[in-house]
Amino acid sequence: MSITEVAIPGAKLTSADIYNSAVASWAIAAAWEVGALDELNGASSLDAEELAEKLGLDPVASRGMFQALASVGVVTRDGGTVSPGPIFDEVNTYRSYFHWLSRGCSGLYTEMPSVLRKENRVGSFYHRDGAAIGYACRELSSFSFDPAFWAAMDRLPFDFKVAADLGCGSGERLIQIANRYPGTRGLGLDIGLPAVEMTTREVARAGLSDRITALQADARDLAPHSVFAEVELLTCFMMGHDFWPRENAVKSMRTLRERFPNVRRFLLGDTTRTVGYPDRGIPLFNLGFESAHDLMGQYMPTLDEWYGVFEETGWKLAGEQRIESPAASVVFELE
Amino acid sequence: MSITEVAIPGAKLTSADIYNSAVASWAIAAAWEVGALDELNGASSLDAEELAEKLGLDPVASRGMFQALASVGVVTRDGGTVSPGPIFDEVNTYRSYFHWLSRGCSGLYTEMPSVLRKENRVGSFYHRDGAAIGYACRELSSFSFDPAFWAAMDRLPFDFKVAADLGCGSGERLIQIANRYPGTRGLGLDIGLPAVEMTTREVARAGLSDRITALQADARDLAPHSVFAEVELLTCFMMGHDFWPRENAVKSMRTLRERFPNVRRFLLGDTTRTVGYPDRGIPLFNLGFESAHDLMGQYMPTLDEWYGVFEETGWKLAGEQRIESPAASVVFELE
Repeated sequence: MSITEVAIPGAKLTSADIYNSAVASWAIAAAWEVGALDELNGASSLDAEELAEKLGLDPVASRGMFQALASVGVVTRDGGTVSPGPIFDEVNTYRSYFHWLSRGCSGLYTEMPSVLRKENRVGSFYHRDGAAIGYACRELSSFSFDPAFWAAMDRLPFDFKVAADLGCGSGERLIQIANRYPGTRGLGLDIGLPAVEMTTREVARAGLSDRITALQADARDLAPHSVFAEVELLTCFMMGHDFWPRENAVKSMRTLRERFPNVRRFLLGDTTRTVGYPDRGIPLFNLGFESAHDLMGQYMPTLDEWYGVFEETGWKLAGEQRIESPAASVVFELE
Repeated sequence: MSITEVAIPGAKLTSADIYNSAVASWAIAAAWEVGALDELNGASSLDAEELAEKLGLDPVASRGMFQALASVGVVTRDGGTVSPGPIFDEVNTYRSYFHWLSRGCSGLYTEMPSVLRKENRVGSFYHRDGAAIGYACRELSSFSFDPAFWAAMDRLPFDFKVAADLGCGSGERLIQIANRYPGTRGLGLDIGLPAVEMTTREVARAGLSDRITALQADARDLAPHSVFAEVELLTCFMMGHDFWPRENAVKSMRTLRERFPNVRRFLLGDTTRTVGYPDRGIPLFNLGFESAHDLMGQYMPTLDEWYGVFEETGWKLAGEQRIESPAASVVFELE
């Protein structure tokens, strides 16, 4: 994608830019979810009230949404019409980043004054919307990790019969693997019971219940299970940072090595902490990803920290594929 | 204030600018509330970890906050130090606008996809944080409506014994009037029982229970009460738009005229809907104020709509004072 993804470091934002952008970020997430971005995509101009009517939206509330989108150039308005604005394509491509932030992580950021205070950081001291994060991450993964993942799959130097996915979420990855590799079986592991249940449900809906099963398990400290011996391919996306800090990562990944003695390849995809960008030039998404993890108190390793840990874990880096957006993202091919 | 308050209409924001601004808006609200903005105000540079320690904040979570503030130029970071950035003064002056939006109205905007849909717009279909809005509005009013209000009070062509405040909130205005005008009494009206209780509590704390009382009442359709006959001065701030749409405003304000037969002046301060700004140049705060009311389905009149309604209400416009920020704000002096 030949799209401007970073702020222009020299350009000064005004406080109105910042303020209007905050409103617009919510509006981008909403406009995606209610279908307005898809309607506008490729259109020259649409009647705003007709568009609201078509989507079942209140026309006055929709005016608020379009005003917010127009305030930062996502759309332009002329009388009663709405058209894609100068940054429509850029924002529409990356709408899932905005959704992840303004719908999925809103609870965390809104309660920041309480989350920041040391005395409050016990128990479940923050709240995020897991369903919204799942919604955003499915699309986010489709243009970021998925292409790199399938490229790595195409390079597998062996055939496999059983694949296991750590942090299986909705089961989407296992379903896609099963469809693409007939005759293989899948095993989903997730720390959350809702995710295990969703995987089971989605697998049934895909007619794959005889080939894919899901178990509740903590991949950071995995207990033994007889079924693990069958697994030859291990995948793990967007949760590798949960293994950290370093001494935990060494321990977790060594344990994985022991629990899965017959795994020949471990595809580990994640976004890492950016290094070397100026504060005013941090690429799209990474500020949200990093600051959210800082607020939650979850360690986020850099790429170099990842490189420095493999040797001690018993895994060898056989290859890797960098991902352009989100920046500092990668799929490690471990063996 | 000689501060740039509008976006630069020609300047193009990138999607990273918009995204980082959304994170930063939450961080501005939080940095105010936890005391970080006050610490930075006037400082040259501070050690970030020492500052976190002083304020009782987690150092890693604070890093997330400072990174977000730095991403848009509110602070600059150099190693472990934090300094006021190029737009620190502008943002610190108007921090209450960000708080109103990102703390007070977060629930409304986060649930936008549901709020937009016609079928959901019944009952209490949105949620805002009243306590956070009250926190923001007290400071917001101090630099916007309060100076205009006191100027209008100084111009009162009569002495008064009893003042009534419609939408009295925390009772702050009545307490200030009572302190400035010894021997006068105050009457607070608010539609919300929590506000009535808070006024009663705050008045007691100020030692003014013998001079100020509060009643639960809907100013939009005010029922008669014997005590209203004593009132000579009526004030109403930041709720005048609740009288609208037009035919309701005519009716509500006529009813006020009848209920308060001895009122000689009615000071009505509010922010109106902006007119004539380009979408990319809407001033600070107004986009939030307007789009929030559109989402909630609450009518927001323009200045001209206000001018066009007074004659029919029985009130005469004796004077007015425009407010610079928020734009399109005014205190009407009615008699």
